[in-house]
Amino acid sequence: LKWPCDVAAAPRGPCWVTLNVGGKHFMTTRNTLIGKEPQSMLARMFSEESQMQPSLTDSFGAFVIDRSPTYFEVLLNYLRTGKVILDNNVSPEGVLEEARYFGIENVIPKLEAMMQFQVPSEGMPLT
Amino acid sequence: LKWPCDVAAAPRGPCWVTLNVGGKHFMTTRNTLIGKEPQSMLARMFSEESQMQPSLTDSFGAFVIDRSPTYFEVLLNYLRTGKVILDNNVSPEGVLEEARYFGIENVIPKLEAMMQFQVPSEGMPLT
Amino acid sequence: LKWPCDVAAAPRGPCWVTLNVGGKHFMTTRNTLIGKEPQSMLARMFSEESQMQPSLTDSFGAFVIDRSPTYFEVLLNYLRTGKVILDNNVSPEGVLEEARYFGIENVIPKLEAMMQFQVPSEGMPLT
Amino acid sequence: LKWPCDVAAAPRGPCWVTLNVGGKHFMTTRNTLIGKEPQSMLARMFSEESQMQPSLTDSFGAFVIDRSPTYFEVLLNYLRTGKVILDNNVSPEGVLEEARYFGIENVIPKLEAMMQFQVPSEGMPLT
Amino acid sequence: LKWPCDVAAAPRGPCWVTLNVGGKHFMTTRNTLIGKEPQSMLARMFSEESQMQPSLTDSFGAFVIDRSPTYFEVLLNYLRTGKVILDNNVSPEGVLEEARYFGIENVIPKLEAMMQFQVPSEGMPLT
Repeated sequence: LKWPCDVAAAPRGPCWVTLNVGGKHFMTTRNTLIGKEPQSMLARMFSEESQMQPSLTDSFGAFVIDRSPTYFEVLLNYLRTGKVILDNNVSPEGVLEEARYFGIENVIPKLEAMMQFQVPSEGMPLT
Repeated sequence: LKWPCDVAAAPRGPCWVTLNVGGKHFMTTRNTLIGKEPQSMLARMFSEESQMQPSLTDSFGAFVIDRSPTYFEVLLNYLRTGKVILDNNVSPEGVLEEARYFGIENVIPKLEAMMQFQVPSEGMPLT
Repeated sequence: LKWPCDVAAAPRGPCWVTLNVGGKHFMTTRNTLIGKEPQSMLARMFSEESQMQPSLTDSFGAFVIDRSPTYFEVLLNYLRTGKVILDNNVSPEGVLEEARYFGIENVIPKLEAMMQFQVPSEGMPLT
Repeated sequence: LKWPCDVAAAPRGPCWVTLNVGGKHFMTTRNTLIGKEPQSMLARMFSEESQMQPSLTDSFGAFVIDRSPTYFEVLLNYLRTGKVILDNNVSPEGVLEEARYFGIENVIPKLEAMMQFQVPSEGMPLT
Repeated sequence: LKWPCDVAAAPRGPCWVTLNVGGKHFMTTRNTLIGKEPQSMLARMFSEESQMQPSLTDSFGAFVIDRSPTYFEVLLNYLRTGKVILDNNVSPEGVLEEARYFGIENVIPKLEAMMQFQVPSEGMPLT
């Protein structure tokens, strides 16, 4: 099996990758991780010519990443669809932190704008 | 076991299919996937005469699909009931993206109408 | 083990049943499924004198049902407590569809009333 | 292993108990279940001198209880912290039903007060 | 394998730790648990020179902790990012209780401020 694919792929089939983000499993393809933002830290973790040592795998063969699964989900969906879509119960600030960590630069200004226009959340002073 | 069913079925029983959408398992029947929107990409993936190579299966025998489980759930429920039902914490835009990807055409105008009448979500400028 | 119980029961102990509704497991007793609405389709699936072939079981011994787990949960809780209780993020329309499917007749007028008084949800025109 | 503990404990370590409430696993200690409300039905299920036959265990060794996991979670947290804390998407009425079932008497007036002051939920007539 | 790491690490790789908080698994590194608030009870549980007996491990090798997973998730994310981020459906009071339990002192004033400015939650009298 070619690194980092974890399902035996058809000759020209996609390379599937399982991620364990903070304890939750996500399944995606290397193309999704690399295609839209090839300069991001996330893409470089899974690029073939990478010098970065990728993270370890758990007993299911999933790459472990020490970050929040809730907010990662929004970024992964962005990498799939090209859209930043936030459900009502997800904080843009949480996604922004992950975008900075993973170096997914193109979504940062979008998320900053979302925070600015956000209704002040419960308990946050307005200053 | 006849492709793509993953539970030994009674002679005239339903053909059960397990999907792994982005890391989350869904269980449904081939009839649900094909019946209501036979021309959709999702239906064609699981049709008998399909020329499309269906996606691979994970170690549980579930077909892996590199998309968002949150929004897929709404579409799968539509295929079961014929209704597009959105809980408060699910964005219609997210479901719309999946409807376009899977080619489930009949729900697209409904979802577009839902987005138009939607209360501006947190942080989105009104322009 | 007596059908459909899936845990070895004490002589007069309850008969436990595991359901796989759309990919999510629920654990309950046959008494809960049958007691409050014995004429429902759900009750008849698990009655002893049933002519209906019950659905198949997955590899965990759970009966597979091709419906939405989110809305089924509300109905199952109704069968346990006698109350229809909706959290803010659960659509009454979604529960209503399941109540009709499973033939749980007594909750249908309650859910229809809930829909009528419901604040128009995001994106739904008022007509 | 001493009943009902399911992890080999250090001599004076806590006695861990796993519960399967309606299909969802919770892990806690016997002290939590018994300490704050020793007269509750839940405490008596797990007391040493109990005459009540405790519920059966599933294949993971978890005690099966035929109730709603969503609302049980709030009660278990109360037993841990002494506080009744409701997130926005959890109905006080749902928790109240479970408090009555499990006989956790001290939270009942608090939950009744929460229901009285509650903003009328969607679809509920005001009468 | 060096205590408490549960994945064979590369020579200078991180030490991964799995926690079972109230029945839910979280995966993180010892650096995250210890780095930002080394004086907290949580950090001391996993420090090398600790006199505290760490909690037991479940059958997956995860350290069991008898607390709420919902609110712990916010604290763990704080330890990763340095920010206290609350989604709409998470009560600041719930996180505050956990911060006090785990001795994560720096977030306590932030959470107290969030509670003070919070919109009165459903059913809570204003007194």
